[in-house]
Amino acid sequence: MTFTTSFVPEIRFGSGLHATVGVAAAGLGGVRRATLVVDAYLAGTGLADEVAGQLEAAGIGCVIFAEVAGEPKLAHVRAASAAAAGSDLVIGIGGGSALDIAKIAACTAASGEDAMHYALAANPLPKQPLKTILVPTTAGTGSETSATAIFSGPQGKKLWIWGAETKADLVLLDPGLTVSLPAHLTAWCGLDAFIHAFEASTNRNAHPGGRFYGHEAMRLITGALETAVRAPSDIEARGRMLLGSCYAGIAIDNCGTAIAHTISHALAGLAPIHHGLATALGFEATLAWLVEAGTDDLDAAAKACGLGSAPELPAFVGGLMDRSGVVRALPPAFSAVSAAMLAAEMRAAENQPMRRATIRDVTDADIDRFADQILSLPKAA
Amino acid sequence: MTFTTSFVPEIRFGSGLHATVGVAAAGLGGVRRATLVVDAYLAGTGLADEVAGQLEAAGIGCVIFAEVAGEPKLAHVRAASAAAAGSDLVIGIGGGSALDIAKIAACTAASGEDAMHYALAANPLPKQPLKTILVPTTAGTGSETSATAIFSGPQGKKLWIWGAETKADLVLLDPGLTVSLPAHLTAWCGLDAFIHAFEASTNRNAHPGGRFYGHEAMRLITGALETAVRAPSDIEARGRMLLGSCYAGIAIDNCGTAIAHTISHALAGLAPIHHGLATALGFEATLAWLVEAGTDDLDAAAKACGLGSAPELPAFVGGLMDRSGVVRALPPAFSAVSAAMLAAEMRAAENQPMRRATIRDVTDADIDRFADQILSLPKAA
Repeated sequence: MTFTTSFVPEIRFGSGLHATVGVAAAGLGGVRRATLVVDAYLAGTGLADEVAGQLEAAGIGCVIFAEVAGEPKLAHVRAASAAAAGSDLVIGIGGGSALDIAKIAACTAASGEDAMHYALAANPLPKQPLKTILVPTTAGTGSETSATAIFSGPQGKKLWIWGAETKADLVLLDPGLTVSLPAHLTAWCGLDAFIHAFEASTNRNAHPGGRFYGHEAMRLITGALETAVRAPSDIEARGRMLLGSCYAGIAIDNCGTAIAHTISHALAGLAPIHHGLATALGFEATLAWLVEAGTDDLDAAAKACGLGSAPELPAFVGGLMDRSGVVRALPPAFSAVSAAMLAAEMRAAENQPMRRATIRDVTDADIDRFADQILSLPKAA
Repeated sequence: MTFTTSFVPEIRFGSGLHATVGVAAAGLGGVRRATLVVDAYLAGTGLADEVAGQLEAAGIGCVIFAEVAGEPKLAHVRAASAAAAGSDLVIGIGGGSALDIAKIAACTAASGEDAMHYALAANPLPKQPLKTILVPTTAGTGSETSATAIFSGPQGKKLWIWGAETKADLVLLDPGLTVSLPAHLTAWCGLDAFIHAFEASTNRNAHPGGRFYGHEAMRLITGALETAVRAPSDIEARGRMLLGSCYAGIAIDNCGTAIAHTISHALAGLAPIHHGLATALGFEATLAWLVEAGTDDLDAAAKACGLGSAPELPAFVGGLMDRSGVVRALPPAFSAVSAAMLAAEMRAAENQPMRRATIRDVTDADIDRFADQILSLPKAA
């Protein structure tokens, strides 16, 4: 067996670490000017100004880019890149969108090239991107430890930039930043992280070097998700979720995802839906079918969830979703979407790598059945 | 809780990877000249020439430094540094000694300073050391993933250089390179790695970010050590040992060691003894006392070994050492060493951090008792 695990950045964990961003930036050495890419929501809480103050106290000039809201679009990426021109460091604080924009801007601002120059690996990334510090405020995407950044291109199609050059120099995990996340988002993001860990450690690309990060993530998340949803200020549960989603990010960075992500990406191509919810619905719809593969990796994943063996997984995951208050429903816009449309999207070229990575062969009949099942869900009012 | 995990380099794993060193060096970019630091023994097998050929085929000039035998001394480090002057890359291939020398030379050749300038953290390491690729040929020290390098100073005293600047850019784990290691060294080195994992995940500095690397290392090593000793060419067992010792290196890089290493360092200060054997003897002498601490971390370590709880550990470790053929004896030179001398050495300033890190308070009476126990071992003929 041969495998490679990509480098893992330095990770600092602790409640209150958001107060150390300025010191951390200075510690990287040679930083005179930083661009802060933050969720618009967080800028409103005063966090951006607080961090700007820390940077100034450390002798580092600061530009704030706070136009991040919703999924990143090319226009956001271009504006962030312009804001980062002349900086030595990009600091991303927020959900996956803010982190992804920060990762891309650190490359494009360094080279002066447009994001489209690098989209879908059209050209190699610059060898010397700006330095990056990533500070996630949701326990979900794991973008802080992955080499991928997603944005919507000129036609609204989801594009990606991939490469070790996008990875952080330093990750700060501050559970205190995640306590204000509402219960339904805590559940959706947390399930996304759980599914990253599960798919990465059970798909065809799983290997020992990625799998054990996935197992640790599943242990942490299954032990904390319900508490984080029901007792939002439980800082220990929030910490486990944040560390778990970070390790799940390392797992997908090395081994990728599978069928649940084929479905969630296909759903997102048809109407707006939260990535975590879409992934959870896709996962629940396929899990009983998946575990019939009966592999050792599936049993090992079950054990990481505290179960005896893989056949117990579907009931366990259903219960976890129930106890986390996940309503199985699609957004209303999906009333205009048919199962055939979803099936066609699942067969689109860009969704095939995740389909092929799935540990069972996904036949066209499977796709039709899964699409039927997903579209039979209620369309929430 | 607050903790930091240091960065983990890219790790490539696979039998036969020694044939890809040249390609890996070229992949780092901007490398025109490499210095190869190899065990003298390995140079004799033709491996050094083979790798030099790979580098030349990749357009990279190569200097071979093959004067590594036994524990690294200041003279070795200085000679390696001189050999590395003018190179962009240092490649270490061998046991912990070769890797440690390579790590130091990458710093000293970059700055032009002597190794003594950096010893015991007297001065900060250069921010831009030469690039390093580390290729361990024993499953033991974990030096390939730690930030520490050990050498003997002018008076023969063990010194260390520590810092993230010494860490590898790339680690290549080729289990095929470890199959020729004799059974007794396989056992001693493997136990050293196991004890790294155990101490790092149970001492006072243990934290979640380091502990799970330790647990994975213990799982891998306890499942493979006996096979690696008895069936030396079992490449799967060799692979588990090599991956396990690499993860144990990450664990100590983050959380350090404890009482067994106080004893082994103290023994090494009195007469020549293999580090792995000394550590295993120190571990066995203290484990029953240690597990009386009754911490959750000790139980978790026991579970990683496939046991129910910590009190089962002493019998388990004793059995593992028996089955791995470890003779409980000190080298003959220890006939001239008294228990009082060992106890005094265990109380030396440089051995206190490991003593203090131990999960139980180590009293002076404990030290006397452990020293008596160790020195009562036979002095092998």
